[in-house]
Amino acid sequence: MTVQPITLDRLCIHQVTLMQCDFRQSMESLARHGVTKTAIWRDKLDDIGTQEGARILCDLGLDVMSLCAGGHLSSSDPNVRRKALDDNRRWIDQAAAINAGSIVTITGGLEDGHTDLRAARDHACQGLAELVPHARAAGVRLALEPLHPMVCGFRSVISTVREANEMLGELNSPDVMGLAIDSYALWWDHNLQADLAEAAPHILNFHVSDWLAETRDVRLDRGMPGDGQIDNRRIREWLEAGGFNGPVEVEIFSNQDWWKRDPDDVVRIIVERAGTAL
Amino acid sequence: MTVQPITLDRLCIHQVTLMQCDFRQSMESLARHGVTKTAIWRDKLDDIGTQEGARILCDLGLDVMSLCAGGHLSSSDPNVRRKALDDNRRWIDQAAAINAGSIVTITGGLEDGHTDLRAARDHACQGLAELVPHARAAGVRLALEPLHPMVCGFRSVISTVREANEMLGELNSPDVMGLAIDSYALWWDHNLQADLAEAAPHILNFHVSDWLAETRDVRLDRGMPGDGQIDNRRIREWLEAGGFNGPVEVEIFSNQDWWKRDPDDVVRIIVERAGTAL
Repeated sequence: MTVQPITLDRLCIHQVTLMQCDFRQSMESLARHGVTKTAIWRDKLDDIGTQEGARILCDLGLDVMSLCAGGHLSSSDPNVRRKALDDNRRWIDQAAAINAGSIVTITGGLEDGHTDLRAARDHACQGLAELVPHARAAGVRLALEPLHPMVCGFRSVISTVREANEMLGELNSPDVMGLAIDSYALWWDHNLQADLAEAAPHILNFHVSDWLAETRDVRLDRGMPGDGQIDNRRIREWLEAGGFNGPVEVEIFSNQDWWKRDPDDVVRIIVERAGTAL
Repeated sequence: MTVQPITLDRLCIHQVTLMQCDFRQSMESLARHGVTKTAIWRDKLDDIGTQEGARILCDLGLDVMSLCAGGHLSSSDPNVRRKALDDNRRWIDQAAAINAGSIVTITGGLEDGHTDLRAARDHACQGLAELVPHARAAGVRLALEPLHPMVCGFRSVISTVREANEMLGELNSPDVMGLAIDSYALWWDHNLQADLAEAAPHILNFHVSDWLAETRDVRLDRGMPGDGQIDNRRIREWLEAGGFNGPVEVEIFSNQDWWKRDPDDVVRIIVERAGTAL
């Protein structure tokens, strides 16, 4: 490997990785371990209020990569989509208020009882186009994130970097629209290296976790980097070959394991793994 | 839709869909409902013995599309791969003995503790090349089946029709190597229609089930066609546009639902759905 180990200044830990904490506890745990970068989970911010959240982040000197997650624009119902657009404009304003560089944005999935995947994808694309002016005015970028095909039914109707690249091409707003790359969602794709090369100028965020050999849940059983089957360092190498030099963002959804542990243990282990598995 | 409804003579029900039955019970249930096509599950055949299995199939007048599932050739350990090749040669002979047209063949996954996806894929490709002469001599085709990315870790390191097409191209043995297309594995892929057009001359088998909005297991929670989010008829339309006119094969892995029901109810419901959801 030709890449450099990840040092503390390039390490980001997403707030959702410490779902067991409230807003303040999670941020204090990061700060205690010298972590300076995070991404904020919307529900946590809503629990405490945007102003108070911004104050805590400022007091602790934490940089916010992103607010997670916006989007959810794929409904076949125009009223649902209109409501989602209003929500997203509010979330963009929240992101600006906490100085987040981007909102991680997912298309939303197929609704229960629906089977028209292409229509859902096109609704989401149209919704993103409608959000671009507001995001531009707020100075917040929209980081479109393809998710794993196993959550196509309820989270994201785009599942590969290739599909995300195509959508970005249609949106044609490179000053606002970019990509969030999540290794957990994409590691299985043999075309990933080539698609990342094409995506290179648009990559805003790089999320990592690990795929566990015995995966027990389609959404909430992600592993700690180094515990599973993803070569996160190789994927980073591909990103850096294209010019990416941003932080590595650890985002672990784990309701049966890491969300049950002492948050300081979780952060300490991530910091250790940064030198070996990221 | 321009496709014709599926009539009973084009309906195939895989033995594994009736996992609750022994070999004979499952086949008798199909015959009772006028189903004339099946695909045999290896473990069920081993339980009863190849000769006895062949006799039951003959007595009941059932045509066997495939034996399921061979392959498992992706290990990094040469001894494991050698053992797998021996197993596959035996399975090919079993398939010939029950007049199966093909063996559904999966690459195998990444082993626990391994992260080199490309190496696993290349091991599998090499193993398939070694099996081609034996399959040719036996008159059994190898139906390479890409599986859903969520089982990349333990079942298949190829996950799209595109990746399967590339592997078939490398193997360059079109008289022996073909494809099994499973809607459950592939429905999320926006490039599916184009990839199926390219794959058309090589498609041997078409498996269907449905994706459930609330999926509780990465392998064994498939739904009955019509109960979920896959437009199986549209996928069949794409296949038929490329010249495919084989049966539609219902293959449902469902340890929490369909494998617990009366097998005659399962078969009856599939026959009903053939006219509406396939």
